[in-house]
Amino acid sequence: MTAIDFTGFFERLARDSGEVILPFFRSHLGVEDKSAPGAPRGFDPVTEADRAAETVLRRLIGATFPDHGIIGEEFGTINPGADYVWVLDPIDGTRSFISGVPMWGTLIGLMHHGVPAYGVMNQPYTSERFRGDGHSASLTHADNPPRPLHSRRCATLAEATLMTTSPYLFGDEERPLYKGVEAEARLVRYGCDCYAYCMLASGHVDLVIESGLQPYDIVALIPIVEGAGGKVTNWQGGPAASGGNIVASGDASLHEQVLKRLNR
Amino acid sequence: MTAIDFTGFFERLARDSGEVILPFFRSHLGVEDKSAPGAPRGFDPVTEADRAAETVLRRLIGATFPDHGIIGEEFGTINPGADYVWVLDPIDGTRSFISGVPMWGTLIGLMHHGVPAYGVMNQPYTSERFRGDGHSASLTHADNPPRPLHSRRCATLAEATLMTTSPYLFGDEERPLYKGVEAEARLVRYGCDCYAYCMLASGHVDLVIESGLQPYDIVALIPIVEGAGGKVTNWQGGPAASGGNIVASGDASLHEQVLKRLNR
Repeated sequence: MTAIDFTGFFERLARDSGEVILPFFRSHLGVEDKSAPGAPRGFDPVTEADRAAETVLRRLIGATFPDHGIIGEEFGTINPGADYVWVLDPIDGTRSFISGVPMWGTLIGLMHHGVPAYGVMNQPYTSERFRGDGHSASLTHADNPPRPLHSRRCATLAEATLMTTSPYLFGDEERPLYKGVEAEARLVRYGCDCYAYCMLASGHVDLVIESGLQPYDIVALIPIVEGAGGKVTNWQGGPAASGGNIVASGDASLHEQVLKRLNR
Repeated sequence: MTAIDFTGFFERLARDSGEVILPFFRSHLGVEDKSAPGAPRGFDPVTEADRAAETVLRRLIGATFPDHGIIGEEFGTINPGADYVWVLDPIDGTRSFISGVPMWGTLIGLMHHGVPAYGVMNQPYTSERFRGDGHSASLTHADNPPRPLHSRRCATLAEATLMTTSPYLFGDEERPLYKGVEAEARLVRYGCDCYAYCMLASGHVDLVIESGLQPYDIVALIPIVEGAGGKVTNWQGGPAASGGNIVASGDASLHEQVLKRLNR
């Protein structure tokens, strides 16, 4: 990864944000609707936990690395031209969160000269922490020792398990292209957000296809997927760090096949 | 519940089956395709873990209550006319299981004179155990003390969070009725299987609508949902224990509204 070893600092960020978020999970908080009128499903909740956790993360980063940049879901961007830029989504999967389902996670990514260099997905309720640096990836669950992660081979779409957050999130242009891939996949699962990419890195899922992502939805996940041997690009095969339409594959040849279909 | 206190025995069944299943979760086992050709999505996996766990459950029940009946997903029915009949699904949510996602659970139900009297949903990976006896329900997570469960009020469909396993599992007759309800719900989540009913009992979700369930998919969940204050019936408003088309609601008045819509 980078010249500086951020490993211990990442663990601290994950632990401290998890401690802030966990008391809010499955409590009965008011949920605020921040979506624009006419947005798909009209409902993009954000909880107090989101803000409390991002505040903690920003405070820790600002105190430790005052010259670093930060891009966060809740409180915007500071110093985006810095050598190191942190990319934060305190609760990716807010719809799961407010439904009591633990398919959400805290995404903490670090870009170095514009390239995703290190990422953590922390799930404090299930006590799972996925990490990657683009060269290797690992998972810690509860008190077990870290387990290295490897994506799996999958030669054809007909053998693939596909995940996406919701089939309703694709735009009119993307939907038929996505649907064409979905129709040929062996198994399709919805509703997993960041968890889908972590399952791909773990070798349980072969393909994640999404649209309309923000950088904070994907930057932390790229070093995890790539560290496990997978690929993440936009639908044109270019860098994924800016978000938009994203495809991740555990197998490079499957990735090529799917890119062709998404660009018909 | 019933005259005999089965509480301790349920805990033993949950613990022992969880110990059998857990080593199989996220291991790379062969998955067998037991679905009939032309079945929806063509893929109904069953793992070795399913069979190993049901074997353990049947052995324990047979040794302790040899005159009780058993209905199980994997190994069929014995003595279904007994006063007490156990209804077992060792892994409800096999599609989640093989995708590495912890949205599955072991369902252990007990019917007394044909009525669901006690049920447990055990999730050994997240260390969650939901229980109910039709009068009360509780959740234990990890080492925390049991927490009583209460479903929440939800006056109208427009305020409701709805869960279903997959919008593709409904038959041609049921799909438009389901879709009519889905279109008016506030938030829809897919892919949760038994977890959906437990989130409803926990007051995070208002509505679960499914079709084509087997008795072992639902019997254990009925005393949990009803114990938390919710309702579970078939789409006609009759008893749910035989499976089929099922609707569960956290709020009795919402339940009536939804039944009307499903019977248009």
